[in-house]
Amino acid sequence: MLNKLSGWDDTIVALATPHGVGAIGIIRLSGSLSIPIVNDLFPSKDLRVQLSHTMHVGLLKENGKMLDEVVVSLFKNPRSYTGEDVVEISCHGSPYIQEQVINACIAKGARLARPGEFTQRAFLKGKLDLTQAEAVADLIASNTEASRNTAIHNIRGGFSSVLKELREQLIQFSSLIELELDFATEDVEFADRTKFYTLIEHLSLQTLQLVDSFQLGNVIKNGVNIAIVGKPNAGKSTLLNTLLNENRAIVSEIAGTTRDTIEEVININGILFRLIDTAGIRESKDVIELIGVGKSREKMKESDLVLYLFDVVEESQAAVETALLEVQQLNKNYIAIGNKIDQIGEEAAQQKFSGDGILFISAKAKQHITILKERLVDKVVQGTVHTESTIVTNARHYAALKEVQQSLSDIKNGMDNNLPGDLLALDIRRCLHYLGEITGEVTNEDRLDYIFSKFCIGK
Amino acid sequence: MLNKLSGWDDTIVALATPHGVGAIGIIRLSGSLSIPIVNDLFPSKDLRVQLSHTMHVGLLKENGKMLDEVVVSLFKNPRSYTGEDVVEISCHGSPYIQEQVINACIAKGARLARPGEFTQRAFLKGKLDLTQAEAVADLIASNTEASRNTAIHNIRGGFSSVLKELREQLIQFSSLIELELDFATEDVEFADRTKFYTLIEHLSLQTLQLVDSFQLGNVIKNGVNIAIVGKPNAGKSTLLNTLLNENRAIVSEIAGTTRDTIEEVININGILFRLIDTAGIRESKDVIELIGVGKSREKMKESDLVLYLFDVVEESQAAVETALLEVQQLNKNYIAIGNKIDQIGEEAAQQKFSGDGILFISAKAKQHITILKERLVDKVVQGTVHTESTIVTNARHYAALKEVQQSLSDIKNGMDNNLPGDLLALDIRRCLHYLGEITGEVTNEDRLDYIFSKFCIGK
Repeated sequence: MLNKLSGWDDTIVALATPHGVGAIGIIRLSGSLSIPIVNDLFPSKDLRVQLSHTMHVGLLKENGKMLDEVVVSLFKNPRSYTGEDVVEISCHGSPYIQEQVINACIAKGARLARPGEFTQRAFLKGKLDLTQAEAVADLIASNTEASRNTAIHNIRGGFSSVLKELREQLIQFSSLIELELDFATEDVEFADRTKFYTLIEHLSLQTLQLVDSFQLGNVIKNGVNIAIVGKPNAGKSTLLNTLLNENRAIVSEIAGTTRDTIEEVININGILFRLIDTAGIRESKDVIELIGVGKSREKMKESDLVLYLFDVVEESQAAVETALLEVQQLNKNYIAIGNKIDQIGEEAAQQKFSGDGILFISAKAKQHITILKERLVDKVVQGTVHTESTIVTNARHYAALKEVQQSLSDIKNGMDNNLPGDLLALDIRRCLHYLGEITGEVTNEDRLDYIFSKFCIGK
Repeated sequence: MLNKLSGWDDTIVALATPHGVGAIGIIRLSGSLSIPIVNDLFPSKDLRVQLSHTMHVGLLKENGKMLDEVVVSLFKNPRSYTGEDVVEISCHGSPYIQEQVINACIAKGARLARPGEFTQRAFLKGKLDLTQAEAVADLIASNTEASRNTAIHNIRGGFSSVLKELREQLIQFSSLIELELDFATEDVEFADRTKFYTLIEHLSLQTLQLVDSFQLGNVIKNGVNIAIVGKPNAGKSTLLNTLLNENRAIVSEIAGTTRDTIEEVININGILFRLIDTAGIRESKDVIELIGVGKSREKMKESDLVLYLFDVVEESQAAVETALLEVQQLNKNYIAIGNKIDQIGEEAAQQKFSGDGILFISAKAKQHITILKERLVDKVVQGTVHTESTIVTNARHYAALKEVQQSLSDIKNGMDNNLPGDLLALDIRRCLHYLGEITGEVTNEDRLDYIFSKFCIGK
């Protein structure tokens, strides 16, 4: 176990609000010197004698030079985000002023925080475990109801408590096995093998559910890529507009994410669907895009889900079958959609085209669009756990859970083959190790630094 | 006088921090319902019974749906920025969450604030006068020490107090004149004309100083455009790099300001110098740029100050004189600079070239660069007031002060021509009107709306 407090006794400072001009900017300090440092810059009041969770208005001055009029907020150890003394300086939202204030804090003895260092300190002080800390980053990046809910669930220890339960059950049994080893020569069995077998089966099932939830978790966190393909005049751009008009998502403006690729994003039931290469749809006006043509094939390959659209008036059953065969060869999830039922009626369309699960709509007349949206969500959620249970959204957790799954399976095999207690104990320790790695109870500093380095500065 | 409180009794909400992803985002409410509205969303504590200037950690929930874990800060009327009840919600820096929180506040009865509306309310509640309110916007936009200092000076009422003094002196006299008018038929003089004449002369001088300070104020607020011109190989890009290496300014990243024109900005003694068309200098490698060529002439026309650089080794006195004549024809402030004294020595250069105020430097060997920087500042500050006195930085104030100056001059002329009291009183009222317009004591709502509309939202 890592010594949780070594090398973390200095005081850090960073801008906590986004860069740029705004009404307010927040500069945050954490560490034992944060109150004395700000107090040195705040002549109008002695901040050291003020209560926690209070705010103080005044001038910030450095060697007599005015920096800004600010509001100083105090959060005293341990009642703070990091568990250390935390001070937040709310200053005017000028990047120049923010830089000056940060420099003044550094001149008084603070140092610039590394990305995620506030949260890392919260973890080291035991305010959060690693899954909770990682959920903070997820919450900041969240852009739908589902991703927000999962992140808050995990910040509040939802995932941790599931893991803790798994771990405790295993530890209890493991200690009995270890006890046996102490009495190895006497050939006693303190641990009831049948009970243990049931326990391992139970744990395997729980782990399986978590592992399986990652498919949905990944979708919740990262969204689903959708390709709309079909022959010219199938109505792709009309469908695109119909979907966008009602559901266009507010997507966070992270620099660079939308600069190179043009995509539209819609939010249905809290899940983001990214419509890839919509520029192609818009620009080509359905003229060039043919199913089977290189570009469409590329689009489909990049997607998680293909919407194959055809015109129920112009197309024949045979042509649609051929096209769908091509889609199926790519081994992608897809929905076949017959468009323009407003022109010939739904029944005529159903009679003309037979095929599993073809959905008939009119993009123009907005018929059955709700059904299409339900189908989209179903395609994503199908076979996975319900959204209100704990969902694994993090690839690191997923990888560790796969290891947990493997070691549980090894334990089971070991018991099937009557392995001796010391070999079972090895597998149990491996299982505990991977569970502990997820919550950060077992980990090394480099790994932690790597995890937190992906946070933003000031968090 | 405008009814200061009509139509301002609703509660407003806005994001106060810059848009984008960050550790923290602040959502601010102001108005009589701001505490009840947030209290409705904050089930863990009754915010209505908490003290002003306190902070409260908890979950924000809308109809049982979790929005975020937040810190709520309370500023109770009148101890707040606007003078109304103000609540600040510090939430996680996800644009999605911020939007959700703002929408929840709107659903509970707040409305989205207009740009600058928080400051406008502070003005209407008498917490700030108009010059102070405008200084808030200047402070947010400030990007040098000088612009920051001027803005803080004005927020703290520096400019207002000067105006107030002018106004009070004038009002005192005006009331005596008005009294005379009441007794017009009796031909009495309550107001001592000699004393009044002295007063008007004094006011004129003060106004003149303020009007004159605008030249510097404008420079402090907007910076100075500099063109570096000269023949190929005069060393323009070397000089540019030498200046940039030591003094490159941190300029706030306001979208759009630097996208179209490429310019470098340096900060000397708190004044921004914008080196225009540095792309030309960098790209051309001094090959095409000749004095007198169209592009150089354009550059000089756009600039406030021209640096004409010549090579003391290669050039002749006659050629430099010809070039300088051309610069002088443009009627611009300029500095003539002989470069490369490291090659022939300063004395030889001084003997070779005679001319008023030629500065000899070596951009490469960094000789006399400090003197050049002093000259740059001198060229800007010369003839204007000292930077620690009140400086007019706002074009609106400048325009009103010019009117004040004109009416003071009319009053003086009137007295010289023994105008009757009622005509004098008219001019005095006009003068008072323009003074009041600057501080916002005399103004109309449209004008106020226009002024505040240029603020950012959330301020």
